[in-house]
Amino acid sequence: MADSVRSSISCLVSIFAVALGRIPSLMALRKPLPMSVAVTDAHPSSKDISKGGTKKLAAVVDSVWEWAAICVKQCPVQPVAHLGEGLAYENPPAFIVEAHKQSLDLVECNQYSPTGGLSRFTGTLSRVYSSIYQKTLNPDLEISVHSGGTEAILSVITAFVEPDDEVIVFEPAFDLYELHVRFVGGVLRTVPLHPPQHAGTAVSQAGEWRFKTEELEQAISPRTRLLIVNTPHNPLGKVFSAAELLTIGTLCARHNIIILADEVYEHLSFNAPLPRIATLNPTIARHTISIGSIGKAFNATGWRVGYAIGDRDLIRHVKNAHIILCYTTAGPAQVAAAMGLEEAERVGFWDENRQRIKGKIDGLCAVFDDVGLPYVVPSGAHYLMVNATSIKVPAQYVFPENLADKPQDWRLSWMLLQEFGVASIPVSASFSNANGRLGGDYLRFVVSKPQAELDLAKERLRGLKDYL
Amino acid sequence: MADSVRSSISCLVSIFAVALGRIPSLMALRKPLPMSVAVTDAHPSSKDISKGGTKKLAAVVDSVWEWAAICVKQCPVQPVAHLGEGLAYENPPAFIVEAHKQSLDLVECNQYSPTGGLSRFTGTLSRVYSSIYQKTLNPDLEISVHSGGTEAILSVITAFVEPDDEVIVFEPAFDLYELHVRFVGGVLRTVPLHPPQHAGTAVSQAGEWRFKTEELEQAISPRTRLLIVNTPHNPLGKVFSAAELLTIGTLCARHNIIILADEVYEHLSFNAPLPRIATLNPTIARHTISIGSIGKAFNATGWRVGYAIGDRDLIRHVKNAHIILCYTTAGPAQVAAAMGLEEAERVGFWDENRQRIKGKIDGLCAVFDDVGLPYVVPSGAHYLMVNATSIKVPAQYVFPENLADKPQDWRLSWMLLQEFGVASIPVSASFSNANGRLGGDYLRFVVSKPQAELDLAKERLRGLKDYL
Repeated sequence: MADSVRSSISCLVSIFAVALGRIPSLMALRKPLPMSVAVTDAHPSSKDISKGGTKKLAAVVDSVWEWAAICVKQCPVQPVAHLGEGLAYENPPAFIVEAHKQSLDLVECNQYSPTGGLSRFTGTLSRVYSSIYQKTLNPDLEISVHSGGTEAILSVITAFVEPDDEVIVFEPAFDLYELHVRFVGGVLRTVPLHPPQHAGTAVSQAGEWRFKTEELEQAISPRTRLLIVNTPHNPLGKVFSAAELLTIGTLCARHNIIILADEVYEHLSFNAPLPRIATLNPTIARHTISIGSIGKAFNATGWRVGYAIGDRDLIRHVKNAHIILCYTTAGPAQVAAAMGLEEAERVGFWDENRQRIKGKIDGLCAVFDDVGLPYVVPSGAHYLMVNATSIKVPAQYVFPENLADKPQDWRLSWMLLQEFGVASIPVSASFSNANGRLGGDYLRFVVSKPQAELDLAKERLRGLKDYL
Repeated sequence: MADSVRSSISCLVSIFAVALGRIPSLMALRKPLPMSVAVTDAHPSSKDISKGGTKKLAAVVDSVWEWAAICVKQCPVQPVAHLGEGLAYENPPAFIVEAHKQSLDLVECNQYSPTGGLSRFTGTLSRVYSSIYQKTLNPDLEISVHSGGTEAILSVITAFVEPDDEVIVFEPAFDLYELHVRFVGGVLRTVPLHPPQHAGTAVSQAGEWRFKTEELEQAISPRTRLLIVNTPHNPLGKVFSAAELLTIGTLCARHNIIILADEVYEHLSFNAPLPRIATLNPTIARHTISIGSIGKAFNATGWRVGYAIGDRDLIRHVKNAHIILCYTTAGPAQVAAAMGLEEAERVGFWDENRQRIKGKIDGLCAVFDDVGLPYVVPSGAHYLMVNATSIKVPAQYVFPENLADKPQDWRLSWMLLQEFGVASIPVSASFSNANGRLGGDYLRFVVSKPQAELDLAKERLRGLKDYL
């Protein structure tokens, strides 16, 4: 979902702009509040305008994505092979682009669509997911349309998490969850996905990274309101098994915890159909809201269309949150999404796209086999997590001061960028306690890039042999 | 902005769906939580899933828009001439639709755009508004792009209003402001726009509705963080004069209050160029964030593009709020918006559109002149506020029970719909204290409708003569 976003080339300018304020040489640009006579007789108050934004925004600043974007921009090796970002810099398939153009001739698309989504789109979603879920989904009551998967996730969190309520995530975790949970005043509780013992020295399978049921049980408290399970998983590439999902779902149902199933990579499950927690049994289904993303599904991340599917008693609150957050979602893109979902199966897009991404992953794995760095073979999504602990940093290598307090993976990611012109994301950023057990061991590479950029990265990464 | 939305025909289905839960005959559809063994040993907790959403969502439910939409759907006279909604059910001008189609061939549009907006769009906004503001606006630091004017307003409120902070609005006020303020835990303070004495018996000018400076001063407290001024004003059609804005701006600067200038109807100022609070002096400018809407400007409310312009020390927080709320805005629509803004002046669109809307207002005014109901002549926007107090309700006229506690204008609006098939919005909904001084006197009609629908309304409204 939006993770890829964060590090996208196109994000550089804006993120850099936000970051400018923290670069000393540019501080002079900031004007102090003019201390006119008018101002001096103000109420004594701490509300100085230049003092800044609300506390709830604090989590936005200092993200790994901002740091990575600035580093890429300043990198001495250009062009950077940007495997840090999750953005596929290619066009969506022609059939959905054409559908979008056609929908721009329809008045009902060009004016406010219903807050719950255009019936053209919710009807299609109902047909598609009724077939997957093997039950009839009511398009008006069990489906909610959102301005991207990100906004769908925030709508769910906004709908159910009161201040001090707790939300459970499996770590590593896409850092957007923590951002959203903190935004509403909630508290994040983490359950580790434990790697197999050999993960530091040999290739492991994403499926071998497992949570312990007792640790999940211990994370549950009377304040637990929501559990987020992301499958296929970012950054690990893990596809949670039906058995794992049943354990999670049963515990959640028992404790009346709402399950947020972030399935935005649903079409990138490489080895078998994606097990979906909402389909396991009716009780778990009643506790589950599943999130999908047209941007992720069709390589159209700039269209901002996502959706949430779940029990009507949950979805009605999600819809209310959406009304506040965005009011309504772009109409033309909704109709295009509907036409896309109807066409994708017929033209074999899901299979073709999945095989294409899997091929890119295999190609990148081969490079790390060659280099001799262990990695985690993903079962889904479009990331590759590589264990970087055996990369040797040359003596006296000089790192920027702001990396001194960071886990080792930040420095390795920085060095990889400076020396090889390949961008990655330090996986410790996906841990709420960045200095914890696994922080610092892994780098995340994204493969959904144009083949030329990926080939450039692969060629450069082979040079890592000299650093082991 | 989104107000019109709420009552749009296309909203009916979704709003109705949300409302279904409160219609007794459909309550049976709701399934109780299954009381399985698994559930009975849950933590004792009040977090029953069916119990519902967070407190912050409470303000969404029971809005006038939801009520109006249901009434229109159930109206015995069909088709309803729907002057309640602010939605223009026509296409945007061809030049911006074509621009949108072209932009769908650009990769940088189809993938995540920078969170602060595509440079193609921010650059155009900078050129357009630098000319209006007579100073150079930095496209990266002083402009923020949003997924609609509504989301821009929420971003500003989210960026600056902490729980218990106070926000001042002039009443009547677009009810979205209260919704957003309550969402972040803020407190709304209202300053009345007093009608002239004759407003109940004769036509008045929107400009004659004025706030008292001492009442504005009294509304300011040490907790005041934000003041919202909407000009041209919904529902009043008032264009605040430069003198009024100077009073407001000077007070805000003195008390370090941020000014949110909602100028989404900026191109619908009928009598003179719109006075803009951000242009009055540099001190006021430093305290001001101005909101614009591509949807309102180009009759493309379904595209979800808006923007905020202001001092860089304010805008950077607004951008951070946007990152959380929506992450990024649809790229193709941004480029279309840029091309539209560049073309609009050249092809005379602003003038043509303004004259068209003014013509529709004049036509509707003539009907109320004929009927003999006083109204408020708007100086801008696309609404007409009509004083309905002299409409006589027939003896023994039966109203729905849920209107018993409402101000009189709700009943008049309902009767107008039942008897004439013309929808309107009771203006008391635009007052935080709906039973206050002015609640119940006025109905709001929107004129930006296809001419045929407007003509149907006019023909029907003449029948009001028999009710005076």
